Amino acid sequence: VSEQGITGGHFADRLLEAIQTKGSPVCVGIDPNPAMIPAEFTSDDPTEMLAGISRWCEEVLQIVAPYVPAVKPQIAYFEALQGKGAFAGLAIYEKIVTRARELGLIVIGDAKRGDIGSTASAYAIPHLSAANAPDALTVNGYFGSDGLTPFIDAGNKTGRGIFVLVRTSNPSAAVIQDFSNADGKKFYEHIAQTVAEIGSADECIGTCGYSNVGAVVGATYPDEARRLREIMPQQIFLVPGYGAQGATADDCAASFKSDGTGAIVNASRSVIYAHRREEFKSKKLDWKQSVEQAAKEFAKDIARAVK
Amino acid sequence: VSEQGITGGHFADRLLEAIQTKGSPVCVGIDPNPAMIPAEFTSDDPTEMLAGISRWCEEVLQIVAPYVPAVKPQIAYFEALQGKGAFAGLAIYEKIVTRARELGLIVIGDAKRGDIGSTASAYAIPHLSAANAPDALTVNGYFGSDGLTPFIDAGNKTGRGIFVLVRTSNPSAAVIQDFSNADGKKFYEHIAQTVAEIGSADECIGTCGYSNVGAVVGATYPDEARRLREIMPQQIFLVPGYGAQGATADDCAASFKSDGTGAIVNASRSVIYAHRREEFKSKKLDWKQSVEQAAKEFAKDIARAVK
Repeated sequence: VSEQGITGGHFADRLLEAIQTKGSPVCVGIDPNPAMIPAEFTSDDPTEMLAGISRWCEEVLQIVAPYVPAVKPQIAYFEALQGKGAFAGLAIYEKIVTRARELGLIVIGDAKRGDIGSTASAYAIPHLSAANAPDALTVNGYFGSDGLTPFIDAGNKTGRGIFVLVRTSNPSAAVIQDFSNADGKKFYEHIAQTVAEIGSADECIGTCGYSNVGAVVGATYPDEARRLREIMPQQIFLVPGYGAQGATADDCAASFKSDGTGAIVNASRSVIYAHRREEFKSKKLDWKQSVEQAAKEFAKDIARAVK
Repeated sequence: VSEQGITGGHFADRLLEAIQTKGSPVCVGIDPNPAMIPAEFTSDDPTEMLAGISRWCEEVLQIVAPYVPAVKPQIAYFEALQGKGAFAGLAIYEKIVTRARELGLIVIGDAKRGDIGSTASAYAIPHLSAANAPDALTVNGYFGSDGLTPFIDAGNKTGRGIFVLVRTSNPSAAVIQDFSNADGKKFYEHIAQTVAEIGSADECIGTCGYSNVGAVVGATYPDEARRLREIMPQQIFLVPGYGAQGATADDCAASFKSDGTGAIVNASRSVIYAHRREEFKSKKLDWKQSVEQAAKEFAKDIARAVK
């Protein structure tokens, strides 16, 4: 990455290459929740707590890096860390983004930013244009195209990308996102069409044929994912919902094309907090062994389902 | 504000009281854009630039505090400030929130956060529960009720509130938000119904009759604001779009009830960057006089239109 934040490559091409190298289209979410991390990294002292969380994040990155092409730090958990200064935890976010890229991982910053054009231009600076920005950013599309354009422009300039929220994986999403028009078209399909259109501009498409404007499509609704795959042929899907949120590898497979490309599946809690899962506890694995085992099994499970 | 972040009062009651005291339902957006602030606060040195922006923000707060009940710092502009560390500008955000509250201003943090429930709980910590959090937060409702509940719970516990995005003020909003069902109901009206329902819980309603769950309703669509006023009788509307975005005071009036309550109108660029407006330049006012004059006129213009 240069001083100007140029990554040297189109985001979609870089992501597909990383997936090819590691052999599975998976991503591990880095969600540092003080109540969930191993006790040895916690402290009653806020400064020591931050240092412990930083060490834990770095260790998790090193453990999963051989098995997965990408990680997805969830910025909410870093914003939530209280220390000297309200947003002291964001220094750890910045460090983790850099460290992950040094380990050869593609980094998807999960910040779900979104606003009117002028404000989106401000968000694009730290989250996509700066040298220490992640490779991609999740974005909320509620403002429509003029709210998305500044993020897309920043990605085009620096070789980065975005994933626009289309269908989310949470239980109450359907009440909002399934709102249908007279022809039975659902609201999330309407968003999907906007994403497909805005993301099909020549400057957004890599040599692999995919766009640097991707879509978030929850794994918990496989039938809908298949329909969205048709609406958005050039979008890479970022697929949350595997593991702790209930979706299986076969549910996730619905987001892929028949050649096994076109999506990347994320798991967060089921991997990084694997030491809390009964199956690993009963095997007497320590937290590192649990995370490694969970990352390996996750990558293998998705690779099998996609083939 | 106590150590636990309790503000000592219901958000809607505190906001209405502040509006009553200052005599006009207005809010000034604090959007520190290095390209727009007076030259005397800028510098080529990043550390001095941050110090200059911090001083400018503090001066703006002091200038507008006698005339307006509330301010709305836009966190994107603080996240965008690069210094030592990627998010160095957030220390200024934190300071400005605290300083504004010391000046008796209600502070609406404009961060438009939104995610699944577990992640929303993390965002609620720094943005609503911490002692140094603002009085209210703007929130994106695309995840539905389980993504809103953690924010609402945090507000109920601490006397804070949220404003959920319903109808935004930007040009391309209509393409997304006007999506209609077979009965002609639009998507933003569907969101409005969700907000009205979730915000009508007893614990959300203040003695004034309004909820601590408000709505963002752009001033650029007055006919739609009148309809939304009917759908959301207990919601306070946060109304962007006045001034630089093109809406007049009479457009804004559509968001109020006939008794003159129920909304607060925001202006950002037209007030804080008033020194760039021809009408103030031609009067040979300096930047402070321009901001003061613009704030006074803004407050007067809205008070007149609402009466």
